[in-house]
Amino acid sequence: MKNIVTLGEIMMRLSTSGFERFVGAKNLEIHYGGGEANVAIGLSNFGHNAKFVTKLPLNDWGKSAINTLKYYGVDTSNIIGGGDRIGIYYVEPGVSMRSSKVIYDRKNSSFSKSNFDEYDFDSIFENCDLFNISGITAAISKECKELTKFAIKKAKEKGCLVSYDYNYRKMLWEREESIEFLEEILPYVDILIGYIPKGIDWETNEINFDEVKNGFENLKKLYNIKLITSTIRESESASDNKLYAILYDGNDLLVSKKYKIRVANRIGAGDAYTAGFLSEYLYDSSSRDILEFAIACSSFKHTVMEDFNICTREEILKISKGDASGKVER
Amino acid sequence: MKNIVTLGEIMMRLSTSGFERFVGAKNLEIHYGGGEANVAIGLSNFGHNAKFVTKLPLNDWGKSAINTLKYYGVDTSNIIGGGDRIGIYYVEPGVSMRSSKVIYDRKNSSFSKSNFDEYDFDSIFENCDLFNISGITAAISKECKELTKFAIKKAKEKGCLVSYDYNYRKMLWEREESIEFLEEILPYVDILIGYIPKGIDWETNEINFDEVKNGFENLKKLYNIKLITSTIRESESASDNKLYAILYDGNDLLVSKKYKIRVANRIGAGDAYTAGFLSEYLYDSSSRDILEFAIACSSFKHTVMEDFNICTREEILKISKGDASGKVER
Amino acid sequence: MKNIVTLGEIMMRLSTSGFERFVGAKNLEIHYGGGEANVAIGLSNFGHNAKFVTKLPLNDWGKSAINTLKYYGVDTSNIIGGGDRIGIYYVEPGVSMRSSKVIYDRKNSSFSKSNFDEYDFDSIFENCDLFNISGITAAISKECKELTKFAIKKAKEKGCLVSYDYNYRKMLWEREESIEFLEEILPYVDILIGYIPKGIDWETNEINFDEVKNGFENLKKLYNIKLITSTIRESESASDNKLYAILYDGNDLLVSKKYKIRVANRIGAGDAYTAGFLSEYLYDSSSRDILEFAIACSSFKHTVMEDFNICTREEILKISKGDASGKVER
Amino acid sequence: MKNIVTLGEIMMRLSTSGFERFVGAKNLEIHYGGGEANVAIGLSNFGHNAKFVTKLPLNDWGKSAINTLKYYGVDTSNIIGGGDRIGIYYVEPGVSMRSSKVIYDRKNSSFSKSNFDEYDFDSIFENCDLFNISGITAAISKECKELTKFAIKKAKEKGCLVSYDYNYRKMLWEREESIEFLEEILPYVDILIGYIPKGIDWETNEINFDEVKNGFENLKKLYNIKLITSTIRESESASDNKLYAILYDGNDLLVSKKYKIRVANRIGAGDAYTAGFLSEYLYDSSSRDILEFAIACSSFKHTVMEDFNICTREEILKISKGDASGKVER
Amino acid sequence: MKNIVTLGEIMMRLSTSGFERFVGAKNLEIHYGGGEANVAIGLSNFGHNAKFVTKLPLNDWGKSAINTLKYYGVDTSNIIGGGDRIGIYYVEPGVSMRSSKVIYDRKNSSFSKSNFDEYDFDSIFENCDLFNISGITAAISKECKELTKFAIKKAKEKGCLVSYDYNYRKMLWEREESIEFLEEILPYVDILIGYIPKGIDWETNEINFDEVKNGFENLKKLYNIKLITSTIRESESASDNKLYAILYDGNDLLVSKKYKIRVANRIGAGDAYTAGFLSEYLYDSSSRDILEFAIACSSFKHTVMEDFNICTREEILKISKGDASGKVER
Amino acid sequence: MKNIVTLGEIMMRLSTSGFERFVGAKNLEIHYGGGEANVAIGLSNFGHNAKFVTKLPLNDWGKSAINTLKYYGVDTSNIIGGGDRIGIYYVEPGVSMRSSKVIYDRKNSSFSKSNFDEYDFDSIFENCDLFNISGITAAISKECKELTKFAIKKAKEKGCLVSYDYNYRKMLWEREESIEFLEEILPYVDILIGYIPKGIDWETNEINFDEVKNGFENLKKLYNIKLITSTIRESESASDNKLYAILYDGNDLLVSKKYKIRVANRIGAGDAYTAGFLSEYLYDSSSRDILEFAIACSSFKHTVMEDFNICTREEILKISKGDASGKVER
Repeated sequence: MKNIVTLGEIMMRLSTSGFERFVGAKNLEIHYGGGEANVAIGLSNFGHNAKFVTKLPLNDWGKSAINTLKYYGVDTSNIIGGGDRIGIYYVEPGVSMRSSKVIYDRKNSSFSKSNFDEYDFDSIFENCDLFNISGITAAISKECKELTKFAIKKAKEKGCLVSYDYNYRKMLWEREESIEFLEEILPYVDILIGYIPKGIDWETNEINFDEVKNGFENLKKLYNIKLITSTIRESESASDNKLYAILYDGNDLLVSKKYKIRVANRIGAGDAYTAGFLSEYLYDSSSRDILEFAIACSSFKHTVMEDFNICTREEILKISKGDASGKVER
Repeated sequence: MKNIVTLGEIMMRLSTSGFERFVGAKNLEIHYGGGEANVAIGLSNFGHNAKFVTKLPLNDWGKSAINTLKYYGVDTSNIIGGGDRIGIYYVEPGVSMRSSKVIYDRKNSSFSKSNFDEYDFDSIFENCDLFNISGITAAISKECKELTKFAIKKAKEKGCLVSYDYNYRKMLWEREESIEFLEEILPYVDILIGYIPKGIDWETNEINFDEVKNGFENLKKLYNIKLITSTIRESESASDNKLYAILYDGNDLLVSKKYKIRVANRIGAGDAYTAGFLSEYLYDSSSRDILEFAIACSSFKHTVMEDFNICTREEILKISKGDASGKVER
Repeated sequence: MKNIVTLGEIMMRLSTSGFERFVGAKNLEIHYGGGEANVAIGLSNFGHNAKFVTKLPLNDWGKSAINTLKYYGVDTSNIIGGGDRIGIYYVEPGVSMRSSKVIYDRKNSSFSKSNFDEYDFDSIFENCDLFNISGITAAISKECKELTKFAIKKAKEKGCLVSYDYNYRKMLWEREESIEFLEEILPYVDILIGYIPKGIDWETNEINFDEVKNGFENLKKLYNIKLITSTIRESESASDNKLYAILYDGNDLLVSKKYKIRVANRIGAGDAYTAGFLSEYLYDSSSRDILEFAIACSSFKHTVMEDFNICTREEILKISKGDASGKVER
Repeated sequence: MKNIVTLGEIMMRLSTSGFERFVGAKNLEIHYGGGEANVAIGLSNFGHNAKFVTKLPLNDWGKSAINTLKYYGVDTSNIIGGGDRIGIYYVEPGVSMRSSKVIYDRKNSSFSKSNFDEYDFDSIFENCDLFNISGITAAISKECKELTKFAIKKAKEKGCLVSYDYNYRKMLWEREESIEFLEEILPYVDILIGYIPKGIDWETNEINFDEVKNGFENLKKLYNIKLITSTIRESESASDNKLYAILYDGNDLLVSKKYKIRVANRIGAGDAYTAGFLSEYLYDSSSRDILEFAIACSSFKHTVMEDFNICTREEILKISKGDASGKVER
Repeated sequence: MKNIVTLGEIMMRLSTSGFERFVGAKNLEIHYGGGEANVAIGLSNFGHNAKFVTKLPLNDWGKSAINTLKYYGVDTSNIIGGGDRIGIYYVEPGVSMRSSKVIYDRKNSSFSKSNFDEYDFDSIFENCDLFNISGITAAISKECKELTKFAIKKAKEKGCLVSYDYNYRKMLWEREESIEFLEEILPYVDILIGYIPKGIDWETNEINFDEVKNGFENLKKLYNIKLITSTIRESESASDNKLYAILYDGNDLLVSKKYKIRVANRIGAGDAYTAGFLSEYLYDSSSRDILEFAIACSSFKHTVMEDFNICTREEILKISKGDASGKVER
Repeated sequence: MKNIVTLGEIMMRLSTSGFERFVGAKNLEIHYGGGEANVAIGLSNFGHNAKFVTKLPLNDWGKSAINTLKYYGVDTSNIIGGGDRIGIYYVEPGVSMRSSKVIYDRKNSSFSKSNFDEYDFDSIFENCDLFNISGITAAISKECKELTKFAIKKAKEKGCLVSYDYNYRKMLWEREESIEFLEEILPYVDILIGYIPKGIDWETNEINFDEVKNGFENLKKLYNIKLITSTIRESESASDNKLYAILYDGNDLLVSKKYKIRVANRIGAGDAYTAGFLSEYLYDSSSRDILEFAIACSSFKHTVMEDFNICTREEILKISKGDASGKVER
């Protein structure tokens, strides 16, 4: 069991039910989630001490977000209160050839307007083994970009391992800006997730493993990164996906088992990958076991309606060890 | 049947169900409403041509708000599209001694940021008999204050009757500012709703009818207002209210029947009063009939879960003529 | 425990939920009910053998209606199958001053088109102690009027007691026609329910007990009726009612306790009265006990969402013996 | 943007939720739909002025049906009021090898009893570019058969293009009668949908394109029809279908892309095809683009729970241009 | 139509909805079911007289279980009342690679503590053609093991055919104990279900038909069993299964059609097989027809949310005769 | 802010929704609650450090109960895992004259079978200011009686204040046994809740304040108790209650304001009283303020659907200071 800190935004997700569209909808389901919050809950589920840091408004939605984190055992003692509002995002789940639709209403959220000097990083990183953050946080606002950079450097300084999930979102920033930012922080990063510099055609999902490996080797050489990993999704439709992952551990490029998935909810699948990956890494598993656990964890996430995974380490191990048949035990 | 224009904000209301509190809630019901929009729907239900004017974002929530207005027969042809977001307000309905709780998240909405010169008032007021607007609109933002003033003057210029619902909200502005604004626009107002300058103790609901009448006579003298009217609510608890209204028609101060109400949803009761009042006024009813219809309409509104009333003129007349027994016809 | 037969229509009730109005509703709750079917279920709940006779279409709605009767222990072996459709009635429950609204769509139902010679009355009335039917059945159609008359005479012939619930519905027939029909069948009736020939002002609910008693004495003299009884409802609003009942047992006019009722669902309250009344009568209780059980049963019905009562004899006795405090036992 | 008129019945659809069967169901979802109403809404979604003509009862269900059409922007100004009832159809959605089950209760509906001389066709067809009607309308009743014929001729006379969707339903009439009727109206038809005179084995879905083309050429020669088109469905189970379409444009027989569909709700897929087809035709797209848009539109319809499509032209174009991967944009 | 008796436990199933997990769930759906109860309802649906025997507590859950059986036409006249509680089992339905999860809370249930001498077997087996029981009942408790043995012998003595469903559950007893028990009762068994002594690899589902047949021949020789049958499931995931069955009729080993199933609810699929099998056997169908009906029935069960099948013989025959396309009839 | 420990059982409450009865119900809502757990959550809401101690099974229901406590900020670090099952209680909420109905199924729960030596009381009572426990815990089982006694003595030994809520439940033990037990532990008790030795007629709720005071004075003399307090409920019906409380502070008998309550859910109202009482006591408020806060807190609880209160100290103070009008702030 290790101590992990993640930092980012937790939002209120308001989703339509069943196959309902936004237009004409009469009800919304409430969930709370966000990249790094999902990772924190995932790590807590797997038995670690996970602390999530953010800023939330002092109203019932801020309180509910915090309580939800507590429900799953996350340490919320460094969350700061204040600001105007919680960020919202609306989700209309897709099915068959109809894509899921997302409407963001996160501007001016308490977190997006928060400055790095509002956070007490000395307390935050006390006894911390690993710090995880994603590119989404950097992309939210000018303030958050500064905050991300500051937190990463501070974590490094304090002796934490640093994990960075590139997680590019084109609705938030330009590809160039995201890479420029990446390059700025890579010197402080130990584990890099979700970034494949070359060797993949994102339209066809065709992959040239040699090129990919070559790209990863360069990254390692330049920045001395320990582990580089990414999932690769093949989307047949909004209801049917295939998912696998790759891991470069400094020596080999490992390719995971590929899962065929009946999608119930794909939100947070990447965060579940990160949580599974970091958890097994911190449990000192082998590269192969880390990779297979992480991809099983991410695949499993597609069956859970929350943004984060609800599962135990045992459930995921059963699958990563080979039983994805969905049979009932009784 | 007359042509009415109302202008203001329409928001998305997200409410918990049954007796659920915000903290821990899993679902929210979606409704669309706002003072002047509610009045427009009410007038449409009663057989008038009602046009509602606002600005809404070009997304599915903006579209759903417009479609809801269309569903109830409101003319939406002058609604303009654009801006960032629809205003939201969250409602946790109260019961017994627990008050309803409201969380507003309406800052930076498309409407609040709209300028008067974005609206085509020549088209808006074409063939318009009456223009209705409320103090809430004036209080939303600097832009909306200008817009309210501009629209009232323009309406008067175009020969419309002007009705103004004072509707003071202390979370939006100071009492002084609201009265200052009122005095600025009163010269253009024909019907004044919801403003009692003196003669009422708002804590105890004790009323000195002579003083009230005196206050109204002064207003009439100063600004040549045709009709001054207001509801008065006695709140025993969030579940049980009493409601009545007064009307000064230039000669007499009339006091309506007092209704004992089992509250299902009190939101929009004031707007229902305005709609009922204006509708009967435009049908050339007597002062007494206008008043009794309006208060029956407002009382009935407490049984309807939407922000606006769903009812017909016949349903309200049955009650205002004396039958509030709730018996089934069969 | 006695054997009772009731005959009439069982319909599908489709109601909106909570306080929703028809216009704009998205869901309907399904219930099955009808005057005599409700009485049969009530009697079965109280431990009697109750048989319900009707005609239903040979489709899943007909089957569901039959299965619902079976669920509550009613003998459905003489229900005949065929015809076009099950009758429907839509209910929008009222609240406060808003009345419940009913839309009937029962024309051309299998039962309404059924003829008396389709039923095997020899089998139906075998070992039957009491036959109950209501004026609603007589009013449904020309065919049903014949059927009602035929069944009453046949029951009498076979030695059953006959109970008739006048249950006047102005949407189905004229008052005169209903009284003409009543007079035609009264010579065969032992127990008459829901008919007060004089002494009550139905608008004000003021009652002149001497006149009422006088009217009942006349009826007894003319037709040799054993028991005459009726409930009297005072409707403050759709949510709050008062209810009591009177019973003329050939000697005295008894007046029951008056219940103050918080209404959850008033449909079937009259049928619950009939069921409670007949049940206790068949258990040989005293006039006073019959009356108090019946009115407690009818009052209790207002707390049950189905058309019929769900309760045990013990539950009702607890109330009729004096405890209506609603305290929890634990 | 063009002006389209459609005429037919709009019914109340009452469906069970999830995988519930009729027997034992406790709730029904309310939707409103019908062949030509669905087409009108589809065309309105795509930016056209669509007018829907029918007759509906003057009660809350008739009003709700009209309001639903307004919600989606359909012109309801020529809908007439009166008659006894709205037609109902109950749907129990199928899954896997269990077929969807439909119970119709549409006899004696206001529309089915309406006569052609109740409609003001001069007003209806004013400025109308295209009139669409289906074989279902003709099959409903004797009155509706006359009405269909009358309306088609009147539309032609008024200079509208005429589109006819054969849409054969064996529960409504015999195949022979439907073809006889078709032949009677084909001289007035410009666009014929859903009719393949020969070349297809409806059991196996095997198709002989030469024969089909030959059949279409004959039709064109005989009746001078501009466009003949039809969808072809391959049903693996109630949950998994494949769908493609063919179009004879007077020169070539075009075959569309074939979609593999995860079915959420297949009701109205044919009407969505018609709407998509007519919309693109009226936007002057090429034969190939019309066909691909229409089949994408129909496939997309399977993901929408209403009877009609809820979508924009942009959403369908994205799919018809090749992206049916269901990926989220964010 | 034959008379069948089944004996066992009926429990309350409490399941989460949609894809919700136990942790964090807010609602549970109530169903009633249990192996032999499911068989009884299935046989009743197919037109037989089915009697179910058990012991249930004298509270509202016991009553609801009995009423549910009545709803589907099962004879409950020999169910005895008493004891402490109804057994509960919680179900979290699986999806994709996530297995369904079951939590049993059935210890100390009224049935599990009941002794064979509480049941009136002379009345139970009067006119009984066939008695069915399963290994689950034997495994519940010491008392139930005795009861199972006693009932089987008594049934045989009374001249009933005896059908035994092996239905091994490893959470209830050891494999060895279950086989020992099986061997003890096989001399009284005519129809053996769910037991394949050799020739199948339960991990891979690979089957050696010769070996299987050989195993069945031995059983027949040893115990003179008329029919031996079993389903074989191939589980791709919790959402997608394949299912087929085998039948040894004393001469041949027949293999059924294999169904590809989209799973809505797999609970009770084995009981549906038994019900279908016994029903067709009692209708004197051929071995092939019995087998194909039973496997179609079991496959169909996966589309029904209850523990038991809701279907008619006609629906299953349509599928077993070849139409599993899920097309709508209309 | 103080440190409080409570010890007892937390159960799963499964309740029907709306006005549904158990018989025929299809859904149950899940809540978690129990006397001392409710008190702990209440104290946490009011800003204290509350620790709840119990034993729960190592399954998803045990985990959900713990997580729910965490959600509301309760310290669960001393909850022990193991045993067979979580206790269940089913609630059918009453309305009007229909009482709420409770079915307990709590026998053999993990907690009821736990022994005092399984708990680490040295860790539990570290830094503890006050220990609260109720008579329900003592009544659950022989083991729990021992546990209660042991814990009370241990707490006293460790220097904690001890609060005991008598909370008599006749379904669990005899009145005599409960008083015998009370007398055994009173020497260790500082605050006694819910016990009025004389001066009240529990049928009529008539109270003789002098006698009550006299009884309390005796208790104080005998056992040196600091504070003695109790609520008194007047139940007009299941929907309408009145509630007030009395407090003997060693000098005076104070009587609180009496609240008229519209009941949404009365479960846990007593625990809310205890929580409010202890909280204000620990905040060093005056006797009058403690009493008024506690009774406002208990009254407010009737509006909250959970077993425990969801509220803030500010909300309750607003009411206890006089505003129970249920008005909306906006």
